[in-house]
Amino acid sequence: MTRLHAHLLPALVDPAALRGATVVVIDCLRATTTMIHALDAGARDLRPTLEVDEARRLAAELPPGESVLGGERGGLRIDGFQLGNSPTEYRPEVVAGRTVVFTTTNGTHALLHARQGRRVLIGALVNRAAVARACVEPAGQPIHLLCAGTRGEVTREDTLTAGAIIARLLEGRGEGAWDLNDEARLALAAWRDADAARPERLAVVLRETCGGRNLLAEGFPDDLTTAAQLDRFDRVPEYDPITGRVA
Amino acid sequence: MTRLHAHLLPALVDPAALRGATVVVIDCLRATTTMIHALDAGARDLRPTLEVDEARRLAAELPPGESVLGGERGGLRIDGFQLGNSPTEYRPEVVAGRTVVFTTTNGTHALLHARQGRRVLIGALVNRAAVARACVEPAGQPIHLLCAGTRGEVTREDTLTAGAIIARLLEGRGEGAWDLNDEARLALAAWRDADAARPERLAVVLRETCGGRNLLAEGFPDDLTTAAQLDRFDRVPEYDPITGRVA
Repeated sequence: MTRLHAHLLPALVDPAALRGATVVVIDCLRATTTMIHALDAGARDLRPTLEVDEARRLAAELPPGESVLGGERGGLRIDGFQLGNSPTEYRPEVVAGRTVVFTTTNGTHALLHARQGRRVLIGALVNRAAVARACVEPAGQPIHLLCAGTRGEVTREDTLTAGAIIARLLEGRGEGAWDLNDEARLALAAWRDADAARPERLAVVLRETCGGRNLLAEGFPDDLTTAAQLDRFDRVPEYDPITGRVA
Repeated sequence: MTRLHAHLLPALVDPAALRGATVVVIDCLRATTTMIHALDAGARDLRPTLEVDEARRLAAELPPGESVLGGERGGLRIDGFQLGNSPTEYRPEVVAGRTVVFTTTNGTHALLHARQGRRVLIGALVNRAAVARACVEPAGQPIHLLCAGTRGEVTREDTLTAGAIIARLLEGRGEGAWDLNDEARLALAAWRDADAARPERLAVVLRETCGGRNLLAEGFPDDLTTAAQLDRFDRVPEYDPITGRVA
């Protein structure tokens, strides 16, 4: 049986338990969805940072014109940054060929938590099937799905995304092939119960999540529709803990 | 809307957030199930303690014959204790009229975490409907369902129990009457997806949980059947943080 564990928050798993495993980091609304959009729009790479100052310093170290600053605080674009955290802002004319220095709190924290993984993949609903394919190579490697949550709280949107990936993996090989922990079973139940695989349903479900309510309140309803485009991309970005790059 | 929040672990909610609320503490396999059985068998009250030494000391302070020591470490009865943590051990001939000094780690920790609640109720599958009735008195009071988990890990059995209580509350008043947090929605999904309301199914589902697997490994399969007797008791024990008593 191949280990397939979900963790509803970084704090719920010791980083050492991820050593040598394939780790999928999930911050569906919106950091991981946005990273996938940025790379699809031709960004060379992303440099996730925890702090705004760190992002500014890093961007200043890069040759002029080679970087673009993106990210959010309290859901909103940061003063002096070109881009916020809406996936569709990351268009080719802005990011192609450039490094996106990207600061979000929950997603970056989860990436750093996962840094002992053998591979650290970037997961969202928009690349769900591709993540499931990438996870099983090489076969038998333990898989950990690490939900970022929001400020230390479990979120339903990240749990649903983990459940969507698990459901896909179980379609490939039956449930008996996998060693699921209780959190993986809870994530799978969340996905099944939401009946969210129907495309018109998923955006509606996301509106009723912690992150979805916040995005509606902050004026970003379109980001929910964008994040709900299940399996839209074949791309699975990977985080390199040595260089700090996502590409 | 009445607040109806679930917390999949004590660490996921600040104790101050429970102040003045109705808190239901859930440690379904087995502490809260066992407490309900003990009181149903005529125990005068229970005194939950975190430490074994504390339990021994407390029992020694009570008049001879008035107390009985119960609880577990690593799932097993503690040396010198009359009772372990199997609900059916708590028979009238052993506990009637006596104080049960009761030490379990996860359940007691959750009770102490809830001590700022206006009322702290003891919940399990065996008193699920009664807990749901007790929660809504007086109407409009915020309700928090606090899952004990196991050694800091989220468990599916406690989450399912929270989901069962939520499902019952939503039968009473529609979903629109409640302000559910994301963890409450996840718990409800776990319960619905397990299809566990069918009596013959619930014990099977419990076998596939973290606590269920542990109980099978430790040789307590009957405790799963006992814990799965949905709505068997009308009794809702209450914890008094001032006296440290459950009655």
